[in-house]
Amino acid sequence: MQVMNFIDKLLAASRKNKSLLCIGLDPNPELMPSINVADFNRDIINATCDLACAYKPNLAFYEAQGLQGLIALEKTIKFIPPHIPIIGDAKRGDIGNTSKAYARALFSTFGFDAATVSPYLGKDSLEPFIKHRDKGIFILCRTSNRGARDFQDLALADGTPLYEIVARKASEWNCHGNIGLVVGATCPEELKRVRSICPEMPLLIPGIGAQGGDLDSVIAYGVDAAGEKAIITVSRQVIYASREKNFARAARTVAEQLRNQINSALPNHHLPGEQKE
Amino acid sequence: MQVMNFIDKLLAASRKNKSLLCIGLDPNPELMPSINVADFNRDIINATCDLACAYKPNLAFYEAQGLQGLIALEKTIKFIPPHIPIIGDAKRGDIGNTSKAYARALFSTFGFDAATVSPYLGKDSLEPFIKHRDKGIFILCRTSNRGARDFQDLALADGTPLYEIVARKASEWNCHGNIGLVVGATCPEELKRVRSICPEMPLLIPGIGAQGGDLDSVIAYGVDAAGEKAIITVSRQVIYASREKNFARAARTVAEQLRNQINSALPNHHLPGEQKE
Repeated sequence: MQVMNFIDKLLAASRKNKSLLCIGLDPNPELMPSINVADFNRDIINATCDLACAYKPNLAFYEAQGLQGLIALEKTIKFIPPHIPIIGDAKRGDIGNTSKAYARALFSTFGFDAATVSPYLGKDSLEPFIKHRDKGIFILCRTSNRGARDFQDLALADGTPLYEIVARKASEWNCHGNIGLVVGATCPEELKRVRSICPEMPLLIPGIGAQGGDLDSVIAYGVDAAGEKAIITVSRQVIYASREKNFARAARTVAEQLRNQINSALPNHHLPGEQKE
Repeated sequence: MQVMNFIDKLLAASRKNKSLLCIGLDPNPELMPSINVADFNRDIINATCDLACAYKPNLAFYEAQGLQGLIALEKTIKFIPPHIPIIGDAKRGDIGNTSKAYARALFSTFGFDAATVSPYLGKDSLEPFIKHRDKGIFILCRTSNRGARDFQDLALADGTPLYEIVARKASEWNCHGNIGLVVGATCPEELKRVRSICPEMPLLIPGIGAQGGDLDSVIAYGVDAAGEKAIITVSRQVIYASREKNFARAARTVAEQLRNQINSALPNHHLPGEQKE
């Protein structure tokens, strides 16, 4: 069986669903309707799978529920239609020998199409992920939270902020073309810088919705020259649109609005894939 | 029931066992004797629990084996005598809301006494961990691998390397006295710098053994003024001392040698706790 690599799978799903919207599956018992996690995710997925370019479960919310949470994550992965890529949001990073085990956990054991990783331990901590050529690797670059300023924005001796060095190194290490970057929607200027350094990389962009990032600037600065490869991830705003019985329908309504808002903001109003014939 | 905080529990175990040795429980099927993970760990723990100041399972090796691995991790945690602290080596780090779920996973669901975290996302990513006052938080500072040079050693505008800024920030954020740092044994000069910036913090020091760090300089630079609070972690050298039936006895022999070597190198040959009466 031929395996489609992550970036092709992403573009195919994005074009089929005319969508740059990635839905974060982050089940939080404090915000969820009273239903078990796997059923919740199944209903959300069934209601939105013609609207999303990817799904992104964040492992923290499953790990917090112990083995039951991880069983729910395994089920969730199976509920997602096979043509839609799944990004395991894990932000892992360890020394080479250990990172190899994390890459195996995320790509082989769970079977994610892509994963998020942290750059702090440097190249040898990322290599075991990058070696999986058919998988996508999203390196944290400039995150959407306030604490991003503590280290990521620090200026190095030549004035370059750390997050820019991460973007440049990611570009240098991208020999298999499977690296992307995580850049928050809450920092449009930094997003613009990163896009100019890495014009062709997929960018995973959290931070619109609950975190308050501005959609128009995200689109203006985040997409590539073809108006693609921006993966705009929204979690709480979509999946917690309602806590009532109609939660899945409510999630669909918000997801559809977001997808359409994103598409309206695209340069020249091209929908994803349209300019490709 | 009164809960003993991490640092007190660490010092008590270290003094009782006269040991600064932390044993890494990193089960790798390629290196293990043919025995299941939980039984392997149980035998290692039973053979070494009078020699270690702490145990440190690295979650990567359990996650790589899926649900079975995590069941083995839960069992392993129960096999460790309650007076010996357990450090969950997870290197997690995410935005505040998500970090809260990771802290819950590590401290409440698994029940670790301490956890390792990554600093890249800044203060709000660490706060949910730090808030658990009775738990230990080890922030990655200067790691033992080659890739540490890629970002951690970069000089900022005033010439200070990034890892030093991390150490200073950790000190600033240490309002509950529960923060420690991870510094590799492979970089003694950096270890010396970090110890001078944070004279009282516990330092988690991997990198002797398989990674080649030098024990004498680790002791000279790593311990605090009382000759304590250096947690010298060794994994492969101890737990894979033999793949034969006698693996646990072989592990004990190596652990005992290491503990004694560490103690011989201590300043004034004080054993941990002796100078405290």
